[in-house]
Amino acid sequence: MVIDLLTSHSSVRRYKDEPISRETVEELVRAGQHAASSHFVQACSVIYVTDPDKRGQLAELSKNRRQFYTAGAVLVFCMDYNRLSHAAKLHGREIDFSVMENVLVGAIDTALFAQNVAIAAESKGYGICYIGGVRNEIEEIAEVLELPRGVVPLFGMSIGVPNEANGVRPRLPLEAVLHENKYDTTKYDEYLRSYDETMREYYASRDTNQKDTTWSQQMADFLENPQRTHIKAFLEKQGFLCK
Amino acid sequence: MVIDLLTSHSSVRRYKDEPISRETVEELVRAGQHAASSHFVQACSVIYVTDPDKRGQLAELSKNRRQFYTAGAVLVFCMDYNRLSHAAKLHGREIDFSVMENVLVGAIDTALFAQNVAIAAESKGYGICYIGGVRNEIEEIAEVLELPRGVVPLFGMSIGVPNEANGVRPRLPLEAVLHENKYDTTKYDEYLRSYDETMREYYASRDTNQKDTTWSQQMADFLENPQRTHIKAFLEKQGFLCK
Repeated sequence: MVIDLLTSHSSVRRYKDEPISRETVEELVRAGQHAASSHFVQACSVIYVTDPDKRGQLAELSKNRRQFYTAGAVLVFCMDYNRLSHAAKLHGREIDFSVMENVLVGAIDTALFAQNVAIAAESKGYGICYIGGVRNEIEEIAEVLELPRGVVPLFGMSIGVPNEANGVRPRLPLEAVLHENKYDTTKYDEYLRSYDETMREYYASRDTNQKDTTWSQQMADFLENPQRTHIKAFLEKQGFLCK
Repeated sequence: MVIDLLTSHSSVRRYKDEPISRETVEELVRAGQHAASSHFVQACSVIYVTDPDKRGQLAELSKNRRQFYTAGAVLVFCMDYNRLSHAAKLHGREIDFSVMENVLVGAIDTALFAQNVAIAAESKGYGICYIGGVRNEIEEIAEVLELPRGVVPLFGMSIGVPNEANGVRPRLPLEAVLHENKYDTTKYDEYLRSYDETMREYYASRDTNQKDTTWSQQMADFLENPQRTHIKAFLEKQGFLCK
């Protein structure tokens, strides 16, 4: 059942040494193309990284060696207004993607696309891992992949035959995520404390990487300082957010 | 087969008069929660709009009357750092989500979540439609849903029993979307012209809403002027992009 597939997702970071055929990668990307797209702008491009040197550079720059070196396929998902600029030029026109709305559209379009790719891959028995680390050194990664104006790498994805079986992490209580008619914070403390207990037990009892912490503790530690403060400048360099 | 489900998606905007049970909505949202999340921040909240008055207000504000009035269920997907602020406060801490990175994380997390909801719904035979129109009057919609600081409505989704059968629109040629090792524009003109012919034939021959145009023409017309220029100010109001 499809919903069972969706709810059994966990990231896979160790893969068996089995390549994925180009034909399969194309099948997965076609599935991605069929996700919804805002006003049908189709603002996503995928870079399929097959060159071992480039894979190595991405592995170092994104600090995700294990996935990039061992995966059966490595993709980098980019939001893309460059292709749209080419489309407009066929009519002697220029597009204006300089405002915040275009960043939202590009990020959402690209994520919907990628999630289809992820589900398609998992439906074929592969494991996947999203790699937000491509935003660590985003400018250098854009250079390696020769990304022009209008193109921004948002995340990578490693895909391969799983060589590990991870448990599914418990999610926030449904009541803390699903609000009715209005946003309601009145029971957040209760829900979060309850979830913290769930996660403490989960982290303490899982097979690997056991630890003594809670979700709220991890979030407080992780988000206390601003993250990846270079992103805005890179977006401006690529032609976004200039107005 | 799951990939057949993914590639058969088309937006459904007309629904039969059959409600969707709360139990089903909860099942779909649980599937959404199981999508990947950057550093497990789980930065998405869903507002389930059951109040007929609020539905009506959203229908007017987003200019999507048909979907909002006739759907079996209406959801609004929000990126959410408010809940994360609550989590940090349990430890006497404050989080800093004021930089661009947090907008990308929030938009991507929310879109991955929503695409799981969409696929789960379609796997049960429902039709869905993403509603970017909630960003038209984003500030007013945030007021209707009482969204506090840290919460931004990104899009809505209508879900229901389909009362129309739409064809699947042809997507861009795979070669125009999937690049190998570097971004390559050399054949864009060729690919886009070929796609334009495909789309001209599709638009001219489909059952409803026939028109004489091409994809590149639509994009040039749509993107010539900047879209929804009020988004940045709203993000700042909610605590984003302030640094």
